[in-house]
Amino acid sequence: MTHYAKRNGRRQKPRRSAKVGLPPGTIQTDPNAEETKIRAICYGPDALEEVKISRPSQIAPLLKRWPKVWIDIAGLGSAQTISELGQSLNLHPLAVEDSVHVHQRAKVDDFGDHLFIVARMCNPGEKHVTEQCTMFLRTGMLVTFQERMGDSWGSIRERLRLGRGPLRTQGVDYLAYLLLDAMVDSYFPTLEAIGDQLDEYDERLADDDLTPNFQQLHQTRHQLLSLRRAIRPHRDMVNELVRDDCQFISSETRVFLRDCYDHVIQLLDMVESYRELTADLREFQMSLVGKRMNEIMKVLTVISTLFMPLSFIVGLYGMNFNTASPWNMPELNWRLGYPFSLGLMLASIVGMLYFFRRRGWF
Amino acid sequence: MTHYAKRNGRRQKPRRSAKVGLPPGTIQTDPNAEETKIRAICYGPDALEEVKISRPSQIAPLLKRWPKVWIDIAGLGSAQTISELGQSLNLHPLAVEDSVHVHQRAKVDDFGDHLFIVARMCNPGEKHVTEQCTMFLRTGMLVTFQERMGDSWGSIRERLRLGRGPLRTQGVDYLAYLLLDAMVDSYFPTLEAIGDQLDEYDERLADDDLTPNFQQLHQTRHQLLSLRRAIRPHRDMVNELVRDDCQFISSETRVFLRDCYDHVIQLLDMVESYRELTADLREFQMSLVGKRMNEIMKVLTVISTLFMPLSFIVGLYGMNFNTASPWNMPELNWRLGYPFSLGLMLASIVGMLYFFRRRGWF
Amino acid sequence: MTHYAKRNGRRQKPRRSAKVGLPPGTIQTDPNAEETKIRAICYGPDALEEVKISRPSQIAPLLKRWPKVWIDIAGLGSAQTISELGQSLNLHPLAVEDSVHVHQRAKVDDFGDHLFIVARMCNPGEKHVTEQCTMFLRTGMLVTFQERMGDSWGSIRERLRLGRGPLRTQGVDYLAYLLLDAMVDSYFPTLEAIGDQLDEYDERLADDDLTPNFQQLHQTRHQLLSLRRAIRPHRDMVNELVRDDCQFISSETRVFLRDCYDHVIQLLDMVESYRELTADLREFQMSLVGKRMNEIMKVLTVISTLFMPLSFIVGLYGMNFNTASPWNMPELNWRLGYPFSLGLMLASIVGMLYFFRRRGWF
Amino acid sequence: MTHYAKRNGRRQKPRRSAKVGLPPGTIQTDPNAEETKIRAICYGPDALEEVKISRPSQIAPLLKRWPKVWIDIAGLGSAQTISELGQSLNLHPLAVEDSVHVHQRAKVDDFGDHLFIVARMCNPGEKHVTEQCTMFLRTGMLVTFQERMGDSWGSIRERLRLGRGPLRTQGVDYLAYLLLDAMVDSYFPTLEAIGDQLDEYDERLADDDLTPNFQQLHQTRHQLLSLRRAIRPHRDMVNELVRDDCQFISSETRVFLRDCYDHVIQLLDMVESYRELTADLREFQMSLVGKRMNEIMKVLTVISTLFMPLSFIVGLYGMNFNTASPWNMPELNWRLGYPFSLGLMLASIVGMLYFFRRRGWF
Amino acid sequence: MTHYAKRNGRRQKPRRSAKVGLPPGTIQTDPNAEETKIRAICYGPDALEEVKISRPSQIAPLLKRWPKVWIDIAGLGSAQTISELGQSLNLHPLAVEDSVHVHQRAKVDDFGDHLFIVARMCNPGEKHVTEQCTMFLRTGMLVTFQERMGDSWGSIRERLRLGRGPLRTQGVDYLAYLLLDAMVDSYFPTLEAIGDQLDEYDERLADDDLTPNFQQLHQTRHQLLSLRRAIRPHRDMVNELVRDDCQFISSETRVFLRDCYDHVIQLLDMVESYRELTADLREFQMSLVGKRMNEIMKVLTVISTLFMPLSFIVGLYGMNFNTASPWNMPELNWRLGYPFSLGLMLASIVGMLYFFRRRGWF
Repeated sequence: MTHYAKRNGRRQKPRRSAKVGLPPGTIQTDPNAEETKIRAICYGPDALEEVKISRPSQIAPLLKRWPKVWIDIAGLGSAQTISELGQSLNLHPLAVEDSVHVHQRAKVDDFGDHLFIVARMCNPGEKHVTEQCTMFLRTGMLVTFQERMGDSWGSIRERLRLGRGPLRTQGVDYLAYLLLDAMVDSYFPTLEAIGDQLDEYDERLADDDLTPNFQQLHQTRHQLLSLRRAIRPHRDMVNELVRDDCQFISSETRVFLRDCYDHVIQLLDMVESYRELTADLREFQMSLVGKRMNEIMKVLTVISTLFMPLSFIVGLYGMNFNTASPWNMPELNWRLGYPFSLGLMLASIVGMLYFFRRRGWF
Repeated sequence: MTHYAKRNGRRQKPRRSAKVGLPPGTIQTDPNAEETKIRAICYGPDALEEVKISRPSQIAPLLKRWPKVWIDIAGLGSAQTISELGQSLNLHPLAVEDSVHVHQRAKVDDFGDHLFIVARMCNPGEKHVTEQCTMFLRTGMLVTFQERMGDSWGSIRERLRLGRGPLRTQGVDYLAYLLLDAMVDSYFPTLEAIGDQLDEYDERLADDDLTPNFQQLHQTRHQLLSLRRAIRPHRDMVNELVRDDCQFISSETRVFLRDCYDHVIQLLDMVESYRELTADLREFQMSLVGKRMNEIMKVLTVISTLFMPLSFIVGLYGMNFNTASPWNMPELNWRLGYPFSLGLMLASIVGMLYFFRRRGWF
Repeated sequence: MTHYAKRNGRRQKPRRSAKVGLPPGTIQTDPNAEETKIRAICYGPDALEEVKISRPSQIAPLLKRWPKVWIDIAGLGSAQTISELGQSLNLHPLAVEDSVHVHQRAKVDDFGDHLFIVARMCNPGEKHVTEQCTMFLRTGMLVTFQERMGDSWGSIRERLRLGRGPLRTQGVDYLAYLLLDAMVDSYFPTLEAIGDQLDEYDERLADDDLTPNFQQLHQTRHQLLSLRRAIRPHRDMVNELVRDDCQFISSETRVFLRDCYDHVIQLLDMVESYRELTADLREFQMSLVGKRMNEIMKVLTVISTLFMPLSFIVGLYGMNFNTASPWNMPELNWRLGYPFSLGLMLASIVGMLYFFRRRGWF
Repeated sequence: MTHYAKRNGRRQKPRRSAKVGLPPGTIQTDPNAEETKIRAICYGPDALEEVKISRPSQIAPLLKRWPKVWIDIAGLGSAQTISELGQSLNLHPLAVEDSVHVHQRAKVDDFGDHLFIVARMCNPGEKHVTEQCTMFLRTGMLVTFQERMGDSWGSIRERLRLGRGPLRTQGVDYLAYLLLDAMVDSYFPTLEAIGDQLDEYDERLADDDLTPNFQQLHQTRHQLLSLRRAIRPHRDMVNELVRDDCQFISSETRVFLRDCYDHVIQLLDMVESYRELTADLREFQMSLVGKRMNEIMKVLTVISTLFMPLSFIVGLYGMNFNTASPWNMPELNWRLGYPFSLGLMLASIVGMLYFFRRRGWF
Repeated sequence: MTHYAKRNGRRQKPRRSAKVGLPPGTIQTDPNAEETKIRAICYGPDALEEVKISRPSQIAPLLKRWPKVWIDIAGLGSAQTISELGQSLNLHPLAVEDSVHVHQRAKVDDFGDHLFIVARMCNPGEKHVTEQCTMFLRTGMLVTFQERMGDSWGSIRERLRLGRGPLRTQGVDYLAYLLLDAMVDSYFPTLEAIGDQLDEYDERLADDDLTPNFQQLHQTRHQLLSLRRAIRPHRDMVNELVRDDCQFISSETRVFLRDCYDHVIQLLDMVESYRELTADLREFQMSLVGKRMNEIMKVLTVISTLFMPLSFIVGLYGMNFNTASPWNMPELNWRLGYPFSLGLMLASIVGMLYFFRRRGWF
């Protein structure tokens, strides 16, 4: 779906059209997807237990025993497991389908007894620039689907284990906020790197160094286009979470989500600014290239035009007219014919230079 | 109406102006339209019957006998039949007229006792890029009009016959959703093909291969323009179906329509991204072409300017001044006149090259 | 006001500024306007009478005697008559003023006891591209003002006379709808002609035929700009008629106006698409022209550069150095001097061609 | 603030930054401003009195004696007088401050006991293109501030004196509408002049006359930018007056303001159309210039390339090879050597022309 | 974050990504930040006391003793102090965190028991173009955070000390307004300087002086981009303060904030106009450069083409054909051969000039 994805392996690209013609709710896994690994992190204010889940039926007892359970699923390769899990937890089939088809835009859907959130995080330096993550949020239960076990949520898992901060005492909606915030913040390093590149590009152009090529600028524009397409839907999604009177999100968490919303706006702001900046830089570079070419043309004009009459004069006195007749090139027989011709050339040069100077050509 | 249509047969293009001056509700069929074929698919949870309809009066008994009836009409050539059918089913004349004039934008109209939906599907590789389909939705009855018997609804008909999924037990609104979803999804393969073309184009430019011509890019832009014009009205149409409290659509189907709405948004997203990408690619290619031309100009400048003084010098010593006078070209009589002139030429070349190098021209 | 108007007779252009400084409600007729002709078409379900009106006082008895009266005014030259007519029918002075000053944008104004509608129709092939028509709508009475007696309403008058369709039984609001619809539909032929021109232009460019000149494209853009300016206000106008709970328009007519609204949207869609298409075509043509020029430049470069060393060599052996000295051009005395020089030239050509080929210049 | 202002006297430009750091409500007059002249026009249905005001305290008795008073202030040079006047009439200090600092955007502010309106009028041919006017509207009292005593309100003053029209019987809100309308209408002559210029420009380009220079087009764009910046805020301002249920504006006047709103929309429409038209014209002219240059290049190519082989051939037979050897230029000794060389030249010209013609270069 | 910042010291740029992975509410100070200095300005209608605060615990008694307290904090280097101060005053941790991370967009957040405002001021001529300031507003208490002790608030502190104006009697919300207004007004001098630069640029181009280089224009565009990004969020922020029924802002202050809102709109207006103007100027300059180049090309064409036939003729009569044969260049033996060749040249020049003139090339 993204620029980088294409480059490294065309076949990896999730294709939306592969699903055309299938009934809604069908779960069709990508043959290249990683194997599904399920982990339940069950916690309360004072305790925490991590359980590796091999069969979906293991989850129901955990939900009864623990006040809060985070079911952390990585890898979307096992259609059977995911389908069973969805049914056992009573998740909406369309939402489970969307979790597996990793080409969704960020959105939030309220299915009455659970909230479904799709978001995309940025994986700089990896094969897919943006990676889809989905969340199912219900009181006391958070289910998350990831394409791969990434490390951007690692520090949150660690904080949960250590029991630091209000994380253990707050509901799972606060945990969902933290995961969402981590996903949104994952775009900052990439965008800041782009900003640095553009600043450097700008400085080099300012120093009249035209070596940075259009290729680099074009790639950056392309990347920004992909990033904007990934980020923009988050605005509406987070905004909906902040505004709506949804039962699964407490008003305290809503205050934090407002902060998350500010970050999304800031990201879009950066993307838009950089898009405009790349356009400006392209125009700037093209005008510099044009100016440079103009200059070269001017020098060509001047040199060509200076030599044209000289070539004519030397050609003139190279003619073989029968010098016997007094009308035929008497200059050749003058005593100072040669110096006269040189003077003629000098005069033509001086005249030309005066003409060019008056026209302001150099 | 579309780019491809024009190419293959200009006369096929439905012209909106042909209707100017006629009273509203007049059904005027296109002389090139296919003959009308009507098929009724009557079904309940446990049974299904397919009936070929030759006279509209055959339909009323079916509607009484079966809980759900899909009247599937393909071909818009028989004005008489269509007009009678509309009257016998009490469909609004303006809507029936719109079903026959295949240049409508996607829309939904609530005529009180039935819902009228216009949508356009994408037929890649066929003569008309987009094809109009209209639906009349009433409790227990769905009437659909198609320009031609296509195969994009084939899998839905098959599923209906096999009785798989919730299709038989749900109302006709669910069937209408499935048909609509199939139409919306029909754009994905075409758009993905465009995306692949653009990626390939991009890669070739990145490899400094300027052979892909502007013609291809222009055609893609043109196609995207047509697609956007076809897709965009679907956004408002599906959104209206999702939002409005219309009696003909159940709340369960509404959840599925929300998914359909997401697909439309995703399509528009793709079209817009590709439009921007084509603009970027065009700019990129033009800057590459400009740079290339600049380079050629530079080489011309350098070679021309190097030879100009050489030509002057050889012309100079080709003059026929009377060498009897000591002032007239004494060099010709020097013992080393020729090597001197060659040295002069060499010096001019070296001087020029130094000048160009200092200016950073090569 | 429009492009074509300007071309044919600059003095004809209605100038908004002519009114500056006059009190509101002043009726100032254009000296070039046609003489005012008033015709009353009085009708009921079963009867119809057409009366030529010479004095506004003739109208009041007609309004009493007939259930529906259409007062059809063509020509805006007689200030006195129009002013009297406005007063006798109690029309708002600002609205009557707007009817005479033919530079209004389409709009609808509700003056409490009557509705005032301004619309513009398209007159292809005539002097003014768009012509203003205004309507005053009150229960049982419709007053229309036209610049000239046109024939676009001819078929409606004919249908009214023949009593076909629901025209006679419906209220005057249905008549107003029909007139409005005819005006909106009058843009389709012009826009379709533009579409055909652009398609032809596109095909010629695709065949690398650069003869269609920028002038034609620019004129089309200009015309589209004028058309958009004329059409766009109709969207809000018709929408207001559809939405508002105005007493003068029945709910049945409102359904028909929704169809009229769809047509306006479709017109704007076409205009916008064609605007974008002209921009694309311009860019495309400019890139083709640039590419063509590039090619010519390349051939020039190659030919020039091939001949430069040849000219130098022939010039070299045309020098008149005293061949008495052994250092002065010994080649001239070689037995094979001439073939040697020809070989030198051939070698320089081959070397150059190899250099160009390696650079990928041809 | 505007383009023209800058040209004629840079020091005249009101600078917003001069106020930075002062407490709000401070009245700081521009040293170049005209001296303040105050005139009260007191009127009722049957009578009118004009009083020259030298001290603000003169106003209170007039307000008591007359039902409607228009206090007409021209010139903003006397800080003391204006400040006193504001206090004596109980006008909001921020509004009085805005009246003196003539760089405000059009707006309306409701200060509870009076309405404050800022508008800008167009003074074609004068130093400042747009001039700020402010109004304070209260039942029975209208206070207006102008930079200079202009003549665009002259006809309204005259009508007031003559007692024509409903002016004397209506409230001061109707007077305010008339003044506002005059200000809005003041833009029409300037915009129509621009339209005429652009039409003329267009015609000259259409006639392939490239003499109109880019400078003129650029200035027009600049002027349109200034005009748009001045006009645009009027839209919201007048709209607010039309919509809001403000006590100081009667519903009859509101109908007239709707007309004024239409004019503002029309102005913006014209500005936007002309902006687009200038962009189109610029593109058109650049494409014409490019085409012209292309043509010149083509002729150069053809002529250069035709002469190149000729020059080579004449140079060839100008070489001085020792003709004693049979291998050294035997052509020179041929009986028909000269005609042979001429034939060679002719053949090269014909060959070249055939090559160019086949490439479609001329 | 801004253009200028980058130039002077890349390491100074606050990086948003530095915070990625930390729990929300963590205060992480920039190592380059200034040391934190806290000053409390306590005042009532009749008295004022300034206290230097070294420990946050000093503040509570002041808040009890004085009706209004402004806690003025400059320098964000001391994480410990700021964190304690936030806790002792019960400020929301997210807001305190935002105060320290100086890359926020302008916004307002209502935390129930206090209002949190972020704004950015413009520091022309300093290292960072825009500087973040945050305010916490509660009845009787205003806390402000600044990056550095600037002097843009100096005049307000002075007025507070002198007790001039309504500053002492109004609540702290009026003080907050004044500070906000000073921050908004701080952009005017920078924007006016840009406006002057652009006017000068424009005038120089109008005088056909192409020396101002694209670099300057590009930098101005870049600066405007940064300014727009900084200013735009203020619009929503101030608008929210004006509209919302927030308990901490009195209705009198709201009137003043409306004025502040007008200024923000005016700033955005200026930025947008200048952005468009720079684009226009760039286009204008490029068209001038293109025209200039065109002119040079034309002169080159003419001169080259004039000399080409001359060079050919002189080359022709420089050929060494054996003049013994009567067919070999008989002209060389003519009595008037030389004048004949000169006449031939003159004729070719005249012919060429006539050809060029007819084509309108000069």
